[in-house]
Amino acid sequence: MKKRIALTLVVVGLLFGGGTLFAQDASTADTIKLYKQAFDMIWMVMAAALVFFMQAGFAMVETGLTRAKNAGNIIMKNLMDFSAGAIVYWAIGFGLMFGADSGGILGVSKFFLVGADPATYRDWMFQVVFAATAATIVSGAMAERTKFSAYLIYSVVVSAIIYPFFGHWAWGGGWLGQMGFHDFAGSTVVHSVGGWAALAGAMLLGPRKGKYVKVGGKTVVKAIPGHNIPLAALGVFILWFGWYGFNAGSTLSGTDLSIAHVAATTTIAAAAGAVFAMFTSWVWFGKPDPSMALNGALAGLVAITAPCGAADPIGALIIGIVAGILVVLSVEFIDKVLHIDDPVGAVSVHAVNGAWGTLAVGLFANPANIDGVSGLFYGGGLHQLGVQAVGVLTAFVWVMATGLILFAILKGTIGLRVTSDEELRGLDTGEHGMEAYSGFQIFTTM
Amino acid sequence: MKKRIALTLVVVGLLFGGGTLFAQDASTADTIKLYKQAFDMIWMVMAAALVFFMQAGFAMVETGLTRAKNAGNIIMKNLMDFSAGAIVYWAIGFGLMFGADSGGILGVSKFFLVGADPATYRDWMFQVVFAATAATIVSGAMAERTKFSAYLIYSVVVSAIIYPFFGHWAWGGGWLGQMGFHDFAGSTVVHSVGGWAALAGAMLLGPRKGKYVKVGGKTVVKAIPGHNIPLAALGVFILWFGWYGFNAGSTLSGTDLSIAHVAATTTIAAAAGAVFAMFTSWVWFGKPDPSMALNGALAGLVAITAPCGAADPIGALIIGIVAGILVVLSVEFIDKVLHIDDPVGAVSVHAVNGAWGTLAVGLFANPANIDGVSGLFYGGGLHQLGVQAVGVLTAFVWVMATGLILFAILKGTIGLRVTSDEELRGLDTGEHGMEAYSGFQIFTTM
Amino acid sequence: MKKRIALTLVVVGLLFGGGTLFAQDASTADTIKLYKQAFDMIWMVMAAALVFFMQAGFAMVETGLTRAKNAGNIIMKNLMDFSAGAIVYWAIGFGLMFGADSGGILGVSKFFLVGADPATYRDWMFQVVFAATAATIVSGAMAERTKFSAYLIYSVVVSAIIYPFFGHWAWGGGWLGQMGFHDFAGSTVVHSVGGWAALAGAMLLGPRKGKYVKVGGKTVVKAIPGHNIPLAALGVFILWFGWYGFNAGSTLSGTDLSIAHVAATTTIAAAAGAVFAMFTSWVWFGKPDPSMALNGALAGLVAITAPCGAADPIGALIIGIVAGILVVLSVEFIDKVLHIDDPVGAVSVHAVNGAWGTLAVGLFANPANIDGVSGLFYGGGLHQLGVQAVGVLTAFVWVMATGLILFAILKGTIGLRVTSDEELRGLDTGEHGMEAYSGFQIFTTM
Repeated sequence: MKKRIALTLVVVGLLFGGGTLFAQDASTADTIKLYKQAFDMIWMVMAAALVFFMQAGFAMVETGLTRAKNAGNIIMKNLMDFSAGAIVYWAIGFGLMFGADSGGILGVSKFFLVGADPATYRDWMFQVVFAATAATIVSGAMAERTKFSAYLIYSVVVSAIIYPFFGHWAWGGGWLGQMGFHDFAGSTVVHSVGGWAALAGAMLLGPRKGKYVKVGGKTVVKAIPGHNIPLAALGVFILWFGWYGFNAGSTLSGTDLSIAHVAATTTIAAAAGAVFAMFTSWVWFGKPDPSMALNGALAGLVAITAPCGAADPIGALIIGIVAGILVVLSVEFIDKVLHIDDPVGAVSVHAVNGAWGTLAVGLFANPANIDGVSGLFYGGGLHQLGVQAVGVLTAFVWVMATGLILFAILKGTIGLRVTSDEELRGLDTGEHGMEAYSGFQIFTTM
Repeated sequence: MKKRIALTLVVVGLLFGGGTLFAQDASTADTIKLYKQAFDMIWMVMAAALVFFMQAGFAMVETGLTRAKNAGNIIMKNLMDFSAGAIVYWAIGFGLMFGADSGGILGVSKFFLVGADPATYRDWMFQVVFAATAATIVSGAMAERTKFSAYLIYSVVVSAIIYPFFGHWAWGGGWLGQMGFHDFAGSTVVHSVGGWAALAGAMLLGPRKGKYVKVGGKTVVKAIPGHNIPLAALGVFILWFGWYGFNAGSTLSGTDLSIAHVAATTTIAAAAGAVFAMFTSWVWFGKPDPSMALNGALAGLVAITAPCGAADPIGALIIGIVAGILVVLSVEFIDKVLHIDDPVGAVSVHAVNGAWGTLAVGLFANPANIDGVSGLFYGGGLHQLGVQAVGVLTAFVWVMATGLILFAILKGTIGLRVTSDEELRGLDTGEHGMEAYSGFQIFTTM
Repeated sequence: MKKRIALTLVVVGLLFGGGTLFAQDASTADTIKLYKQAFDMIWMVMAAALVFFMQAGFAMVETGLTRAKNAGNIIMKNLMDFSAGAIVYWAIGFGLMFGADSGGILGVSKFFLVGADPATYRDWMFQVVFAATAATIVSGAMAERTKFSAYLIYSVVVSAIIYPFFGHWAWGGGWLGQMGFHDFAGSTVVHSVGGWAALAGAMLLGPRKGKYVKVGGKTVVKAIPGHNIPLAALGVFILWFGWYGFNAGSTLSGTDLSIAHVAATTTIAAAAGAVFAMFTSWVWFGKPDPSMALNGALAGLVAITAPCGAADPIGALIIGIVAGILVVLSVEFIDKVLHIDDPVGAVSVHAVNGAWGTLAVGLFANPANIDGVSGLFYGGGLHQLGVQAVGVLTAFVWVMATGLILFAILKGTIGLRVTSDEELRGLDTGEHGMEAYSGFQIFTTM
C-alpha cells in the first residue's frame, strides 16, 4: 500500500500545486487512472453497504412472517449467519470462489486476504455480502423448529464451501462461466443456491407441529400466520432498497453507464411481481393478500437478478409478472400438495424464481444490451436458454446433494430439531433463555 | 448501447495500457467525458435508491400513527402505490412529464422508455421514485376507512396523470418553469401535489367513525392515537435519511459542488422543525409531544425541499422554525376547526408546508447560491415571491380540481369507503382477510 | 459560489463542446481538479447520510432494550439530541472543533458556517452527524428515569462544548493530534466521549426502581428485559450499515484507495464481536444470548473504529474477538459488581470498547497501511501505545469531569430524575402524555 500513498501524494500535488504542472502528460494519465479506480472503489463499497443492509431485511421478513415466541431465535440466526459466515468467507470461501482457477473447479489463492491490494479488498467487500445472502435465505424455511447449534454449523458450511464452489463455476472462472452461463447478479448463484438449501433443510426437518394434521386419512393444512406484518413489510422495503446495490453494483464498475438500465429493470420487475402476486392472490383466495404481495415483490427481484442487465424494460415487466404469479402458485403447491413446511416461502421466492429468472435470460436477453448474450425472443435461438438450463440444473443437483448430506449428518449426530416441548413453548425460551416481547400479552401456543 | 461498450473498451485500454497512450489528446478527452457521465450516473442512481427507501419511511409513519387493526391495509396501500405507480409512470407518466414539450402543457415522447439511452434511464430512475412519493402521501390522510380497490385506481391516476402534468409545467419545460418558478426538489411539485390530493380525498371520504361526535349540538373531537410510535419514529428517521437523496440528488449532477450546501440546509431545517414543533406542542398542550416533534421534522424537510439550494443556513433555520410551528397549528386547525379527519397529518406536513417552503424561496433565496433566484430579503423584491405564489396556487387548483372529480367518480361508482361494520372490525380483516399482529392481545374496537 | 458556477460552466462547455477543445491543457487541468472535488463531495455526503441513519439505529436499539412504557420518551430523546445538537453544532460546536486552532486548545472560526465554501459545507455535513452520535450514546444509559428537560439541556451541552473541545484536541489541529494520537474514525473521539458521559449520567442518576434490591444486607440484582428484541436487532443492523459511512467515510477522500480495506476490517471486527459475545454468553449463562450477541457486534464496531485503517484483517479479527468477550464481562461487572444501572449497556459498548480499540492501534497498527502509525506487534515498540493511552485517559478525565459537573448542576437545579410515581407508570405518560403502543395489552408495572 506504500505505492498507493505515493500515488495519492502525486495527485494531491498535482491538484493543488497549480495548473501548470499538467504540462507533464504522464501525470495526467496517472490521475485519470487513479480516478477509474476511485469510481470503482466508491461505487462498489457503497453498493456493498446496501447489500449488507439486506441482512436487516431478511431478518425482519423472517421474524415478521413467523410467530412471536421464536422472534429472538430468528434474529440470532440472521445475525450469526452473516457474522460467522463473513469470517469463514474471509478465511476460505473467497479464495475458493475467486482465487486462481484450478481446472475450472475451484480457486486456490487469496485465502485470508493475505497480501491483498485495494482492488482485492474491494472485491472481497462486495462478495462477502453476497455470500451472506445465500446463507441467510435458509434461515426462513427452517424457522421455528431448528436447533440453534445445528443451524450455526450448517450456515458456516454454506458460506465456506457450498456457495463458493458453485460461485467459482459461474463467476470465478470455472466451467459454467466458460460455457457462457449468464447470471448477472445471482438469481442462481446466490438465490437458488440459498433456496435449494432451504428446501433440503425443510425436507429433512419436517413440518412444524400442528401444521399438517391427519384427520380421517386426509391431511388438513393449517395456516400459521406471522406475528408482525408491518415488520415483514419493512423487511421487504429494505430488501428492495438493498437490491439496487445487489443488481446495479454487479456492474462491478463505477464507470459502466448501464447502471441505470439495471436499476430500471430491477424496479419494473419488482413492481410487476408485487402487483401480479396481489392480483393472483385476489383471484385465488378472494382477497388481495399482503404477505403474498410482499413475497411477489421479492419474487420479481429474485427473478430479475440474472437478466437485469440483458433484458429490456418490457422483458423485465414480463419476467416480473410471471414471478408474481409463480410465487403464489409455488407457495400453494409446496404447502398444499407437497406438504413441505416453509414458513416464509423462501423456496418459492428464492429457488423457484431464481430458476425462472435465470432461464428468462435465455428468453429475453437483448444482445444490444450485453454483447453475445441473446435470448430466444431476440433472435438468439435456443443456445443461451440451453446454457442457462445447465446452470439451473447444476445448482439444483449440487446444492440438494451437499445440503441433504450435510443436514443428514447433523440430524444423525447433534440433532437438527428442538424437542416437541421446546417447539411448543417457543425457541426463544428454549434455545436462548429470553423472550422477544417482554411485557406484552401474547398467546404463545398459537 | 453498443457505443457504450466500445467507449468502455477504449477507456479500459487507456487505463491499463500504460501512460504513453495519453499522447493522444482525443482519448483523454473521451475519458474525461465518460467520467462526467459516470459521476452523474452513480450519484443519481444512489440518490434514487435513497428516495426509493422513503417508501419504507412513509409506510412506517402511516402504520405507526394509525390503529393496529388497519396496519396490513396501510402496508398494502404503500406497497401498491409504488408498484402500480412505477409501472404506469414507465408507460405514460414519465413521457407526459419529461417528453418533448408540446405548447408548454405536456410532454409527448419517451413513453415506455423506448430507445432510451443511459442518460434517459438515469433520469427515469431518479424521477420514478419522486412520482411514487407524491402518490404515497395520499395514503395517510385516507387511512383506516378507504376501500382498497378505490385507492388502487386513484393511486394509478395520480402517478400517470395528475402528478406528471403539473410536473411538466414546473420541471419538464412547461409554462411554470418558463416563468421562473423555482422548486429545487419538489416542495410543491411533489409534496403539495400529494398533500392537496390527500385533502381532496379526506374531504370526500369523511371522518373515521367516532372521530367527531355531536353532543348536544357541539362537536366533540376525539383523539385516535396511533398504535406504534417507535415504528412511526423509525419511519421519520428513514424519511430524513432518504431526503438526502431527494434534495441533494436534485442537483441532478455528481460534479455540482453545491451538494453539501443542499444537505446542510436540509439538515438544519429538519432539525429546527423538530425542535420548534416540540416547543409549540409543549406550550400548546402542556407536554412535549413525540408525534408532533416527528411531524415537525417532516414539516421542516418538506419546507426546505424547494429552497434547499437557494437559501443560506440562516434562511434554512428560519424556514424550519416556521415549519415546526406551522405544522402543529395546521394539524390543530384542520382537526379542531375544519373537522377534516387526516389521521397522520399528511395535509399539514406536505400541502401546507410544501406551500410555505415554496413561498420561502421568494423570501430567502440568496442569488449568490443560484444565479437569478433572488428573494425579498436578499434584494430580489417581490418578483420571485409572486412567481412562487403562482406555482403554489396552480398546484392547489389543479390538484383539488382533478382530485375532487376523480374521488367523486369513484364514490359514485365502485364506492370510496368500506362499510361501517368493516371499519369497526378493521380493514385488515375486511379487505385482506388477515391480521397484522397475530398472537398479540389487541383491543380492536378502540 | 459564483466561482463554482463559472467553473461548472467551463466543464460543461468542455465536455459537450467536442474533443477539440482539449487542446487547451489548462482546461483539462481544471476539469481534473473539479473531479477530485466531486469525488470527495459525493463520497463524504453519501457517507454522512449513512452516519445520519445511525440515529435510527440508536433509537431502535435503545427502545427495544428497554420497557414499552418508556418507548415514546426514548424516541423523543433520540430525535432531540440530533435535532437540537445539529443546531448548536452549526452555531458553536463545529467552529470550536474545526475552526482555526488557538494554542492547541480550541478552534476560533467557522461559527454559523458564515462564508462557507463547498469544502466547508462538506466537512460540516460529515462532522455534524458524528457530533450527534456522541450525544445520543448517553440516552441509553440514562433511559427510563431521566427528566426530559434535563436531558435536553445536557444533550445540547455535549454537542456544543464537551464533544467539540476533545474533538479539537484529537482531530482539529489540537495538542493530542500534534502528539501523534491516532483515532481513525472515533473510537475515543466519538464513542468513548459519549460512553464516559453515559457513565457519569448513570452514576448521578442512580439505578431504576427495583433494579437493585437489598435483601438481608445482600444486594439482589434484578434483570429488566427489553420489550422489543426484533426492534433492537433492527437497530443493530442499521448501525452496522451506517458504520460503513462512519469508518470508510473517515478516509475523508473519495479517491483514497484504502476505502475497501477500512470496510473489510470493519466487517471482520464486527462479525468477530458478535460471534464471540455469543460464545461468551453461552459459556457464562449456559445459553447463547441475543442481546449480548447484538451488543457484541456493536462492541466490535466501536473497537475497530480507531484502528480500521491501520490494522490488517488478522488484527481486526483479534480486536473484534476481544471486544466480543470484553463487552459481556464489562456489562456483568458494571451491573453485578459496581451496581451501576446502564439499561442498554452503553458504557460497556462505547466507553470500554472505545478505549480498547484506541489502545489496539498501539498494538496492531501495521505501518504499511498508514505511514508512521506502528503498533507493538508490528515493530513499533511502545511509543504509539503510550500516545494512545494518553488520548484514552484524557477523554476519560475530560468527559467525566465536565459530565459530573454538568449533571450535578442539573440535579441541584431543575432536577435530573422523574418522580418515583412517574417512573412506575412510565415516562411516556408522565413526560409526554401519550402511550407508545395504544391498543396493545401491556403489563406496564414490569
